[in-house]
Amino acid sequence: MGEKAISLTVIKRLPRYYRYLGELLEHDVERISSKELSEKMNVTASQIRQDFNHFGGFGQQGYGYQVEYLHTEIGKILGLDQSYRLVIIGAGNLGQALINYRDFEKRGFFWVGIFDNDPKQIGKQIHGLTVQSITNLENFMKQNTIDIAALTLPKQDAPKMASALIQYGVKAIWNFAPVDLNLPKEITVENVHLAESLMRLSYNIKSK
Amino acid sequence: MGEKAISLTVIKRLPRYYRYLGELLEHDVERISSKELSEKMNVTASQIRQDFNHFGGFGQQGYGYQVEYLHTEIGKILGLDQSYRLVIIGAGNLGQALINYRDFEKRGFFWVGIFDNDPKQIGKQIHGLTVQSITNLENFMKQNTIDIAALTLPKQDAPKMASALIQYGVKAIWNFAPVDLNLPKEITVENVHLAESLMRLSYNIKSK
Repeated sequence: MGEKAISLTVIKRLPRYYRYLGELLEHDVERISSKELSEKMNVTASQIRQDFNHFGGFGQQGYGYQVEYLHTEIGKILGLDQSYRLVIIGAGNLGQALINYRDFEKRGFFWVGIFDNDPKQIGKQIHGLTVQSITNLENFMKQNTIDIAALTLPKQDAPKMASALIQYGVKAIWNFAPVDLNLPKEITVENVHLAESLMRLSYNIKSK
Repeated sequence: MGEKAISLTVIKRLPRYYRYLGELLEHDVERISSKELSEKMNVTASQIRQDFNHFGGFGQQGYGYQVEYLHTEIGKILGLDQSYRLVIIGAGNLGQALINYRDFEKRGFFWVGIFDNDPKQIGKQIHGLTVQSITNLENFMKQNTIDIAALTLPKQDAPKMASALIQYGVKAIWNFAPVDLNLPKEITVENVHLAESLMRLSYNIKSK
């Protein structure tokens, strides 16, 4: 598949392609031309052809792309052909929003533990899971294999919690706390910094 | 200040500089060398000097950077020297999380209206605001000047709502629905696609 040769800029576009192709599947679309896909996605058709050529080019002249095949192949590249077990630290509104988000399960991301240190949250039922005290975390992590930990807790608590999670064996952190976690290189970190997103918005408002 | 010559890649780093400098201010740090900042931020010192040179280079040889001045100047570039009035459409968990996020107000982003079509949400008090019925939106928009609308509603409702908001005069959309909004070019859109963030994470797990 020449998978290793795919550049980072192409990789960055894959989740969006994957989302669009998933929508087409939901609407029972079996095949699509690069032209149609291009109009839908606001990317040039030649860009699409070039991108898809990187991993074997799934199209056929005059036929277009097989939506399901393409969706599956891109999914594999994104690691969506396997499932992931997640815990979340912080059962506030943001944590609850993430747990209730249906699209994640559909793509193989399963919440298996929710933890908080707030007595008001502990014991609450969210999407079939009970919020546990953070004091149970270490024990829980010993008994379960967890792939990803999401951090939806105050920024001052995030670095210490991230270190603890790594000690407990977590290899990937999805960080929503507005702070950069300086973690060992073998740990995968994906940050969602909402305040920075809002600043990009105000910058763009200003420059229009 | 040569502001117009700043490249996009530098601009992209500004929110992060702004966040770090804000943290230093909170800790009463008055000045910092590019070396110290570099260690804190995991960016090379020469990169920092180069970036800051783009907008006048606020440093002095052997003295370092004045934190407050730099924070203010970067804030101006990001449009944070003015305030913004925001509405949010969708009072679910994600909407509530955004409204309760204290950092936004500190940076000049003020929520002034919350709307939902769910009778269970309408009338609820969130952070001093009452959730209004979506049927009030048009009237509300006629009586108020709104800079930004945040969309935290199901994806099937997002495109129609975005069009309505633009008709009501909104110039910028902060979109959390997992769908691309094809809006006129004069409208500023900033997307937060959480599922795509999670896919980047699984891709990076896979490629480690």
